[in-house]
Amino acid sequence: MAAGVKGKKMTEGSAHKRTRGGGGSARRAERTSFKIETAKFIERNIPNFEILTEEALEIIETNAEVILEEVGVNFVNNPAALERWRQAGATIDGERVHIPRGLARQLCSTAPSRFTQHARNSERNVEIGGKTLVCAPVYGPPFVRDVAGGRRYATIADFQKFVKLGYMSKWLHHSGGTVCEPTDIAVNKRHLDMLIAHMTLSDKPFMGSVTEPSRAQDSVDMCEILFGKDFVQQNTVMTSLINVNSPMTFDDVMMGALEVYAKNNQACIVSSFIVGGAMSPVSVAGTLTQVLAEVMAGIAYSQLVRSGAPTIFGAFVASIDMNSGAPTFGTPEASHILYGAGQLARRLGLPFRSGGGLCGSKLPDVQAAYESSNTLNAALLGGVNFMLHSCGWLEGGLVSSFEKFVMDADQLGVLHHIAKGIETDVNAQALGAIREVGPGGPYLGCAHTQENFKSAFWRTNLLDYKPFETWQEEGARDTATLAAERVETLIQNYQQPAMEQGISEALTEYVLRKKASIPDSFV
Amino acid sequence: MAAGVKGKKMTEGSAHKRTRGGGGSARRAERTSFKIETAKFIERNIPNFEILTEEALEIIETNAEVILEEVGVNFVNNPAALERWRQAGATIDGERVHIPRGLARQLCSTAPSRFTQHARNSERNVEIGGKTLVCAPVYGPPFVRDVAGGRRYATIADFQKFVKLGYMSKWLHHSGGTVCEPTDIAVNKRHLDMLIAHMTLSDKPFMGSVTEPSRAQDSVDMCEILFGKDFVQQNTVMTSLINVNSPMTFDDVMMGALEVYAKNNQACIVSSFIVGGAMSPVSVAGTLTQVLAEVMAGIAYSQLVRSGAPTIFGAFVASIDMNSGAPTFGTPEASHILYGAGQLARRLGLPFRSGGGLCGSKLPDVQAAYESSNTLNAALLGGVNFMLHSCGWLEGGLVSSFEKFVMDADQLGVLHHIAKGIETDVNAQALGAIREVGPGGPYLGCAHTQENFKSAFWRTNLLDYKPFETWQEEGARDTATLAAERVETLIQNYQQPAMEQGISEALTEYVLRKKASIPDSFV
Repeated sequence: MAAGVKGKKMTEGSAHKRTRGGGGSARRAERTSFKIETAKFIERNIPNFEILTEEALEIIETNAEVILEEVGVNFVNNPAALERWRQAGATIDGERVHIPRGLARQLCSTAPSRFTQHARNSERNVEIGGKTLVCAPVYGPPFVRDVAGGRRYATIADFQKFVKLGYMSKWLHHSGGTVCEPTDIAVNKRHLDMLIAHMTLSDKPFMGSVTEPSRAQDSVDMCEILFGKDFVQQNTVMTSLINVNSPMTFDDVMMGALEVYAKNNQACIVSSFIVGGAMSPVSVAGTLTQVLAEVMAGIAYSQLVRSGAPTIFGAFVASIDMNSGAPTFGTPEASHILYGAGQLARRLGLPFRSGGGLCGSKLPDVQAAYESSNTLNAALLGGVNFMLHSCGWLEGGLVSSFEKFVMDADQLGVLHHIAKGIETDVNAQALGAIREVGPGGPYLGCAHTQENFKSAFWRTNLLDYKPFETWQEEGARDTATLAAERVETLIQNYQQPAMEQGISEALTEYVLRKKASIPDSFV
Repeated sequence: MAAGVKGKKMTEGSAHKRTRGGGGSARRAERTSFKIETAKFIERNIPNFEILTEEALEIIETNAEVILEEVGVNFVNNPAALERWRQAGATIDGERVHIPRGLARQLCSTAPSRFTQHARNSERNVEIGGKTLVCAPVYGPPFVRDVAGGRRYATIADFQKFVKLGYMSKWLHHSGGTVCEPTDIAVNKRHLDMLIAHMTLSDKPFMGSVTEPSRAQDSVDMCEILFGKDFVQQNTVMTSLINVNSPMTFDDVMMGALEVYAKNNQACIVSSFIVGGAMSPVSVAGTLTQVLAEVMAGIAYSQLVRSGAPTIFGAFVASIDMNSGAPTFGTPEASHILYGAGQLARRLGLPFRSGGGLCGSKLPDVQAAYESSNTLNAALLGGVNFMLHSCGWLEGGLVSSFEKFVMDADQLGVLHHIAKGIETDVNAQALGAIREVGPGGPYLGCAHTQENFKSAFWRTNLLDYKPFETWQEEGARDTATLAAERVETLIQNYQQPAMEQGISEALTEYVLRKKASIPDSFV
């Protein structure tokens, strides 16, 4: 696959140097000094945490095959899918597909274990699979929340603001997809506004629409404008989210979108969407069995559509609070499932999606942080390759929070540095420093410290490390307050990455034409 | 070692059934319904996270031996210690002890890899070492903070309140030591008030005083009243914290306390106390080398005092913010050191202390939760056996927070459930449920769910899982507000565990007599 990106003439660097009209000189000066950086996707230099024994893995894998063969999965309203399965050797009973033992796994073997998703700025390309971890923001909430405005329905203006924040976030590699639902735009047209926002307000990779096969096709068409037609057919430029309607049901809308993407060589995350106890058994091993069966069936189907189409083994899992019926996040059972699913995905040789800054809290408060941190840590150690919802997720996915977006995004830096592992070269061993300083210390002034301190430790861009007295004098701000300020700083310093005018105009023309071709629908 | 506990006649259960005067009938009814539980210490059924390769471990171990031999360690103001080292084969140069390669490791081999710390209620005994994890509360802060009163110097009343909270906390196995510094009591007498509080207000195991050898002796004497003299000499009833004055200095106060405890068969945590970059090299591998050298020297010394004395390999490690000089917590480098130190401790065959709900934040806010959660998760996976500061730590250890105490204590439940690992027996496999429910679901009503839901998922006692509307009607409380309410609930429902009157009187008499024997000192 080609490494370059078509349709992009100006470099990221040149875009950053431009200043735009409208601000005073002070604001320009601040902008000039504000450094926009994007970290490379994570390549882990640490082991994965393997919670399941070989024996446990074999039990789950055997049971998943039993489920696929004896219980089967439903492909709803999709005769073409049933025909594909029949030709592949499955037994069809109505809309139920019984998959003989071993067939799904065998079909999955043609899906790549690692692939490149290209961005329009080739420096932002990501590799998904193996030891990598790509961080993408929250996906799907109909509401937004911020300190100033509280909780409210999301609009396209909110959407664009989140895309800008994502572009400005160092530790975020991916612009994501539905960072919030722009509810002020017609349901059948909002995908166009979302796509053009990702394409023009950011230069990071992004996701396509999945809410109708025709909207998936619009996504492909717009990418062909952005990247060039040949480039899209030869390379993966979108990674899109295909949820299984758990338990074990593949509906025609999601499968229709998957078919469009697979045919066009675009990546799909085939993801069980499970609240354990409601959409899967109340036990971890039972849930893992079902997840494995579902994802194998979905990815096998993608390979029937186009052998070699890139896919990701997805597991979105919450547990349930049996008192209220609410989904719960950051729980021990969710971590168990994440760790186990990662092992199952690796044994299939597939990239793995799970995790994120998941939480049930209504506010970006301590509960939100505990729950999110539990999941972020598990995702890093559990071998996640693509982490949707890395930042901004609130209230069980009902709300995209501006403050939580920058809070979580800062913590992603922690994951980057943990993933580096521990260096043990001569400089890192620091024997000379220990000899030089000796008993009693201190190390602050020694040569080794002076040479290494700038790169030795991760440093937050958000949290407060100041002495108590300074912190108090500055207003005793909590993290939510600091985060609200950081959101404003990032937005004020945002500068749109440059784009060739012809492409920009062609994208706009496409969106306008498509919007004019059908009446608004809000269902 | 005997399993029972001397000097305790009433059971925990009978104590809970008692109601005390002073409250109305409503309060009594609430008390009666309030369930006081203490979970058994954690026994992990999950693997440890091993971040260092065999080669890296050998480099660090080799370098630590080089340091001990060529650089050496200082034993200050302690001629008897120098003499012990000389007789063991070390070379003494002034107060510097040069330990020949292999000697420290060899001496460490007589320390037990796992030991029992007895509580006055034998149901609260803890095992420290191997795959266990024992959780103890925050240790050392001179300040306390709560929502109502803000930040202020700690008093003995605060101390007693924390001991009561610890007693009431299900996931806390240990009453700890200096849960806050009772600054309203003379420095030379406060250990007496702290000890009698742990002994009488809780029945969980606790820590002894280390601020003077004579205070360590008071701790032993009071334990002999509580447990019986023979029992104390034959069993471990205290685990106390001996910090190394890093780098590589062992002062006479701490070593004097260690000598008292080791002679009396009581456990010491020999703990490097390091802010990386200030008291150790700015690199992780260098810091691990120094930690290993220091802890080996300290534990080797404990074995020279009494071969077989129980010890714990301790690593308290923060990184440093090079801008402000402040210690920082929950950072990637701190996690690296925790994981690495755990491996080094296990290769020495010693129980391991690290971790806790460590944070630098001034408030129990999002920063506090992220930082604490990062460390709590690392501590579980990194194989920590004794976790001081499990709950209540705030502001880099300057503050004990009442709200954060119950916040963190709730999260310890997450660790308990993760540690259980994943069951794969026939019930957990849930094949029958998957067959029964089939594609489309739901699982909520199926037999397997009904039989298992009560025990399937961990459930918080603090966080809010309610629907948005209910939460809003109830006042839209954040976690700090919920925590403040929980503190009050626990304190209102507190009932002192019963104690034989003679023992209680003897302890009181000891404290009064000791206090009367010397004038107050506040330095």
